[in-house]
Amino acid sequence: MQAVGIVVEYNPFHNGHLHHVNEAKRTTNSDVAVAVMSGQFLQRGEPALVDKWHRTKMALASEVDIVIELPYIFSTAQATGFASGAVQLLEAMQCTTLAFGSEQGSITPFLNTFHLIESNRTLYNAIIKETIQQGKSYPQALFAAYEQLKQLSPNAYIDLGQPNNILGFHYVEAMEQLQTVMRPATIQRIAAGYHDAIDTDSEIASATGIRQALFSGQSLEQVTQYLPEASIEQLGHWQAEHGRFASWESFWPLLQYAILRHTPQQLKQYADVSEGLENSLIKYARSSSNFVEFMNAMKSKRYTWTRLQRMLTHIYTGVTKEQLHAYSSPTYIRILGMTSAGQQYISRIKKSLSLPLISRVAAVSDPILAIDLHATQMYQLGIQQFSNKKIDEDYKTPPIRY
Amino acid sequence: MQAVGIVVEYNPFHNGHLHHVNEAKRTTNSDVAVAVMSGQFLQRGEPALVDKWHRTKMALASEVDIVIELPYIFSTAQATGFASGAVQLLEAMQCTTLAFGSEQGSITPFLNTFHLIESNRTLYNAIIKETIQQGKSYPQALFAAYEQLKQLSPNAYIDLGQPNNILGFHYVEAMEQLQTVMRPATIQRIAAGYHDAIDTDSEIASATGIRQALFSGQSLEQVTQYLPEASIEQLGHWQAEHGRFASWESFWPLLQYAILRHTPQQLKQYADVSEGLENSLIKYARSSSNFVEFMNAMKSKRYTWTRLQRMLTHIYTGVTKEQLHAYSSPTYIRILGMTSAGQQYISRIKKSLSLPLISRVAAVSDPILAIDLHATQMYQLGIQQFSNKKIDEDYKTPPIRY
Repeated sequence: MQAVGIVVEYNPFHNGHLHHVNEAKRTTNSDVAVAVMSGQFLQRGEPALVDKWHRTKMALASEVDIVIELPYIFSTAQATGFASGAVQLLEAMQCTTLAFGSEQGSITPFLNTFHLIESNRTLYNAIIKETIQQGKSYPQALFAAYEQLKQLSPNAYIDLGQPNNILGFHYVEAMEQLQTVMRPATIQRIAAGYHDAIDTDSEIASATGIRQALFSGQSLEQVTQYLPEASIEQLGHWQAEHGRFASWESFWPLLQYAILRHTPQQLKQYADVSEGLENSLIKYARSSSNFVEFMNAMKSKRYTWTRLQRMLTHIYTGVTKEQLHAYSSPTYIRILGMTSAGQQYISRIKKSLSLPLISRVAAVSDPILAIDLHATQMYQLGIQQFSNKKIDEDYKTPPIRY
Repeated sequence: MQAVGIVVEYNPFHNGHLHHVNEAKRTTNSDVAVAVMSGQFLQRGEPALVDKWHRTKMALASEVDIVIELPYIFSTAQATGFASGAVQLLEAMQCTTLAFGSEQGSITPFLNTFHLIESNRTLYNAIIKETIQQGKSYPQALFAAYEQLKQLSPNAYIDLGQPNNILGFHYVEAMEQLQTVMRPATIQRIAAGYHDAIDTDSEIASATGIRQALFSGQSLEQVTQYLPEASIEQLGHWQAEHGRFASWESFWPLLQYAILRHTPQQLKQYADVSEGLENSLIKYARSSSNFVEFMNAMKSKRYTWTRLQRMLTHIYTGVTKEQLHAYSSPTYIRILGMTSAGQQYISRIKKSLSLPLISRVAAVSDPILAIDLHATQMYQLGIQQFSNKKIDEDYKTPPIRY
């Protein structure tokens, strides 16, 4: 049996994702698709629309065979750490290929780009540093450095202005640096751009567009055309149970409280809180009455929305810089769910796994896992702040079998 | 002009309090009554029913002339620290007498009790220590030690089984130890016991009884007979604005979140969190769906409800043990409100004050005051978690003039 690995967030799982899984299996001639998926908090630094269990069910109903949780310390890290955690898990799952979607659509330019940057790393970093000092954001600095490097040796390179190309680059980079047996492949993304609003003439919309539609008060029926039936069903269950989808806006009362509990000095224990941000956090948490108002006050040229959100995720969950940076490699494989084909695949590789496989968490003591269980609690508190539920879902939920 | 000092919480101000102020002024022949009042969090370790501004208005409308805020670090301390902070502030306000209500009703037995304990301090502490080691609570141990001491030298002593006698004892103790110019006096409490439920045949009910009635869903009309008109009015304003009175039950979603944000180790930074309480806190915060359920799970013979609540107050506000224990004396006098007679009195003593007088806080930088402003924010967040108000009341509210 051959497995293809994919790195996903499924927030929510839509037709574009379905296309990607199918193409990943077809083009690599794989029997199963293994998805490593962010848990309750995502790489953009925000809570997932619905929890990891609902998203796992969406995936298993739509051609994904195994869903592995990407631990919090990786899922909320910058692109490099995110990619490294995901790549290590897929390698541990003995995937032959990691297939990512990209605007580029062919793999050679990714490898060219990696080798260009790798062989000019010192110059590259120097340009980035200089550009940041000129007041640009990190992504802007990265882009500027890349443009200069490309002049050195003409070749087919990727366009690092495209969000999925950037992600793909980090996967390729992680695989090359970790010297994985697993090889990279890429699938041309179709139709919707990463951040595009929905287009009613298409069956493909970006997750961003779908979320925007849901939060702007549109009913599930109005986004049905972009989602597989199982996704509609899971979103419907969630909505019926919780009344709304998770978002920073709904977590705001707790986030505001979390920020204001601290002195500026105490806030510095969280990742990315420095350079006076500790004072702005308190000042604007005090003066803002909702999340968007707060973010608009916090945002500056220097800090991207995503970086600020990641910082807020850590303040919200209470996971300190020290906890976050204590580990750079996964220490276990946590199965969130599997199909019968997925189960077959696991049975075959089980004995040769390099990391322990976790299906029930209650008996396991691991510091990275402890952070995941903690993050789940914090997510549940955010959703359940108006209900009176107990907070123990991660302990009682076994892997989903589809 | 002569001033009598009183130590109050007014949660809420009721007819028994009115009787106490009037008697305090009459029996000491004073022109004004100066009340040092707990702010948003009280000595029993809970949020006040309504905020300090509303309670100040109740007091000023009912014979109190000046209301001074007892800083958070004293108002949420054990009895000794609470009494010491209050006594120091009333001494700084140049009160001639501190008049407290008690079951005892005359001052000599208080002084006798103080001198009995003071001259046998070593024995007293040894018995307390031993009794606690036998598994009793601190109040129980204190009571047992006292019973043994009384055998040493027969005299008129107070009954330390009575809650207001205990408080009074701590005021006398603080005054004797600090050698204040101000002298103690006591006023016999009338009718309702400290914790009694309300009695519809009387015009006097305990604050505890009134709160119970309010939280059990009775309307303000049903407690009208126990409260001066101004108290009814202020409670009514509050209810109209916030929909409910502040309580741990309504603060529970934030308290639960605050506890669960921490690792057990991190919880130890708060006062009284030790001896495994850090693990129980997390265990029961996870399994409880409301405050009473949580407290019933937490409570044991060893820890009184009040001690647990004080611990929770600090976790809720985020004020660490280190912050709490950094100071043992007030560094300023903060006026929450005054009548015109109160203002006259302040004008007279203004030049000879030993502590700076604060009426507007925005321009003042003081670590004890910073904690008070912080506690006010935390209180406001607790009340306003379902509204979208800004959190800046302490900065914009000047002293109330009545």
